[in-house]
Formats: sequence, structure tokens, C-alpha cells
Amino acid sequence: MPILHKDMTLCISLAGRPSNLGTRFHNFLYDELGLPFVYKAFTTDDLEGAVRGVRALGIRGCSVSMPYKEDVIALIDELEESAAAIESVNTIVNDGGRLSGSNTDYEAVAQLLTEQAVDPRSSVLVRGSGGMAKAVVAAFRGSGFTDLTVLARNADAGSALAEKYGYRWRDTEPAPGTAVLVNVTPLGMHGSDAAAQSFDDEQVAAAEVVFDVVAFPAETPLITAGRAAGKQVISGAEVIALQAARQFERYTGVAISPEQVARASAFSRQE
Amino acid sequence: MPILHKDMTLCISLAGRPSNLGTRFHNFLYDELGLPFVYKAFTTDDLEGAVRGVRALGIRGCSVSMPYKEDVIALIDELEESAAAIESVNTIVNDGGRLSGSNTDYEAVAQLLTEQAVDPRSSVLVRGSGGMAKAVVAAFRGSGFTDLTVLARNADAGSALAEKYGYRWRDTEPAPGTAVLVNVTPLGMHGSDAAAQSFDDEQVAAAEVVFDVVAFPAETPLITAGRAAGKQVISGAEVIALQAARQFERYTGVAISPEQVARASAFSRQE
Repeated sequence: MPILHKDMTLCISLAGRPSNLGTRFHNFLYDELGLPFVYKAFTTDDLEGAVRGVRALGIRGCSVSMPYKEDVIALIDELEESAAAIESVNTIVNDGGRLSGSNTDYEAVAQLLTEQAVDPRSSVLVRGSGGMAKAVVAAFRGSGFTDLTVLARNADAGSALAEKYGYRWRDTEPAPGTAVLVNVTPLGMHGSDAAAQSFDDEQVAAAEVVFDVVAFPAETPLITAGRAAGKQVISGAEVIALQAARQFERYTGVAISPEQVARASAFSRQE
Repeated sequence: MPILHKDMTLCISLAGRPSNLGTRFHNFLYDELGLPFVYKAFTTDDLEGAVRGVRALGIRGCSVSMPYKEDVIALIDELEESAAAIESVNTIVNDGGRLSGSNTDYEAVAQLLTEQAVDPRSSVLVRGSGGMAKAVVAAFRGSGFTDLTVLARNADAGSALAEKYGYRWRDTEPAPGTAVLVNVTPLGMHGSDAAAQSFDDEQVAAAEVVFDVVAFPAETPLITAGRAAGKQVISGAEVIALQAARQFERYTGVAISPEQVARASAFSRQE
């Protein structure tokens, strides 16, 4: 029988619209590893009160999602490099009342670029200019990429994002020929844009790496097209699992293997 | 596999020194009844922040123990009669951000006096003048008892408690002959006072009802003496289970049977 113990450590998430992913990912690994932790998603209309509650109740970790990632910065004590680089926090660790913020989206993208040996000399085309695009573009910068174009219809957001990291912005798609195609828009996401392929077959054919940050479904039209064309693919499912794994390790202090990440990810996506 | 869902409702407790009792009692019944709730004990050094966290995170229920039962009153929105009568809250229910406080210790004692048909015309001797004694004496008053003596060495606390509810105070034990003997001191409690019998055999022999609020162990020397003498006994284990049951019903809206209370109580005491 699953009975909690008083001394179990609580980790939570704060999101405008909580998904069940984190709750399943973290609790799956707590259970598999026999760790005395428990994780649950929350939403709030009082971010300051929620963070004060994190301190007052000794909640060990707090994952932060839209729309709180920027506002939470003023409420915590220090920023790690990953969060400072993009002024966006998705992870808070509570060390005895001292709250430090990091951004494991940034870390996950940077780690995937390294692990999958994407050449930093490659040309990169990033479609999108929202919050997650900031983490992605910053991670390319942090990984040494110098030739990157932000493709975004929104001139203000697109040019600001590109300039912040020393890259170019354009609002129309360039001719095929960019080596690394990255989608950070909702195109291909479960819902009304599910059928949309964020880069067309010609762009995919001319590329070497296809990277879709959309996590639901794991197989977006872009990822499917990339696989069909024999390209190297990186999926949003990998990003979201890896960023959760980095959170898990920060919260628990326990390192997990790629196999464990894969099992937890598969479990978290079952529902 | 015990995996939490994001939409489960969290209830917590706040105590200076959390026990595991509430966590086991409530989670046992959530599990037995298949309710989407989870319960965990906390401590805090920032009561105001913890209560703000209860509101901000939508925590449904919060059990309150020493030393927060009085200080929490200023932080909530309304007091039910059971808490107002003794200016002490052990239960907070969060209805969409509105926090109401009640005292299920008071309710449990009053309910036991009624259920066990203790005659309100009986003479009563209550040993003790601390926080729990306040709940006990108020419950006797609320149940219509008029002939009650508070027995306490501490003249200030003892006389104040007695006067508040229109009873007498004395600092020395009266001759045997009181009908209802009630212990609300640590005498007989697990620990250094475990062997102490809070009322001696002569007092017990002359009484009709022996009531020990000490919950650990369930069988204190007083309870054992009461049973041996063939007296009606009420134990602290009954009080603590019943007060938790009243909390459970407030938090979940689900009524539970005496058999369910007994099972949850037995489970909660196993550890």
C-alpha cells in the first residue's frame, strides 16, 4: 500500500496550466529508486505567496512553467548561469531556505547538442521567438555556435532575441541550405497545428540535423520528415525528459542513467 | 505502483515536532476509499508564510499542532464555534482561498462524552491546565457539565482555565469521590513519565469514569487501572482518532464509519 511518511521530501511544480508529465516523471523515479520524495503539480494566482510557501514549508524543489518563469526571478535568492543567461527560471532548489534558480531547458538543449555531436560550425535556423526560443538560442550560443538565424514574424521579439545573442533575424524563410533546422513554434504540436510541418521537405532535404522542440507528440511532422529523409533528429520529447532529469538530479542529489531517464519519460507520456 | 496525479488534492499538517500519525491516518483512508488526496506533515519557522503557502497553493486542509494553535488564528478568515470557544485552532479548511478554523480536539471530546453517555450531572476532576486541557474543559462545559474542578499546580494557568468556563480550581488533590477522572497531563505518557499513574487506585476505585487524554501508549497506567477496577474508560487513542476523523471529513467531505476510524487509527499507530 502506498503510504507516505511524514519525513518524505516534497517537490512541486508551478504552472499556469499544470500537465501531469512532471508529477509522473519524478514520482516514477522516486519509486524506482526507493527515494523518500513525493512530487505534485500546482497552479497559483499568488506566485509570491507560493514561493513563500516553498520556503516556509521546506519544499525542496519547485519546477516553474509558464507564465511564472520571469516573474519568479525577483522572489529567489540567486541565479545559476543557465538561468541568468536567459533571465528565465524553470527550476528552483531550496537549500535550507536559500532558493537558487536554474534553467534546465537551456541545459538540456546544450547537453543534447554536445551528446549528439552537432558541429558548432554548422549554420542554424531557429523558427520562433517565444520563451522557449530564448532558452534554445542561448544554448546554441553557449555551445559555441556562431552562424544562427532567428526566423520569426514578430519583428520586435525576433530581432531582440537575435541581437541579444549576436545572431541575425529575418521574417521570411531563407532558401534551403541551412544545416541545422530548429522549430520552437507550436507548429506540429498536438492540437490545431498538429498537421503542420514547420520546415518543408526541401528545407529538410538540404539540412543535416532536424531539431523539433515540440514535445507532444514526440513524432511531429517535422521529426517524421527528418527521419524519412535520413537526417539526424533531436526531438522535443528528448528535451523535456532531459530537462526533467536535470531537475530530478538537483532536487534529489541522485544521478540517473540515460536508461532511467528513458523509462521515466516513457511512463510520464503514457497518459 | 503508487504514482500521484497532478490533480490530487494536498492536505498537510503544521507542527513544531511532526509525528507520523496524521500522515498515516489520512493516507490510509484516502487509499481505502480511493480518494484523490495526499497528506503530508510539515514543520515551519515561518507560520505566516506557511499559511500564505496554503492559500497560494490551494492546499485543501491543514492540521495545526503545538506551538501554532493560537498564533494561527490571526492568519485565517473565520473561526468555527469549536475553535472560538477555546481560542485554539487545530484544523484549517481552505474553501477556494477562504480559510476557516475549527478545533476537532474539542469536538472529539464532546462527541465521546455524548456517545459514551457520561452523565452531565457527574462531578468531574480534570488534572492539567495546558493547551489540551483548555479543549477538554471547554468540551465538558459545552456538553452541559456544571460540577468540574481543575486540578493544577500552576495557580495562574489553573485558576484562569477554571474561571474561564465557570469552574473551580485547586492545586491539591481532593479526597477520592469524584465521578469522572480526567488526565490531561503527560503522566503515563510514553517517555520518562510512562510509569506514572495520574490518579491513584483509591481515586479510581471511587470513580465511575476514567478518561486519559494521553494517546501514547493507548494503555496508560490510568487506563489499565480503570479497566482493572471495572470502570468505564475513555482513552486518548480514541480522542486522537476521532479528532483526525473529524478533520478527514472536513477536508474530503466524505463521512467515515467508526470501523473505518478504528482501522485507520490502528494503522496510524503501528509505527
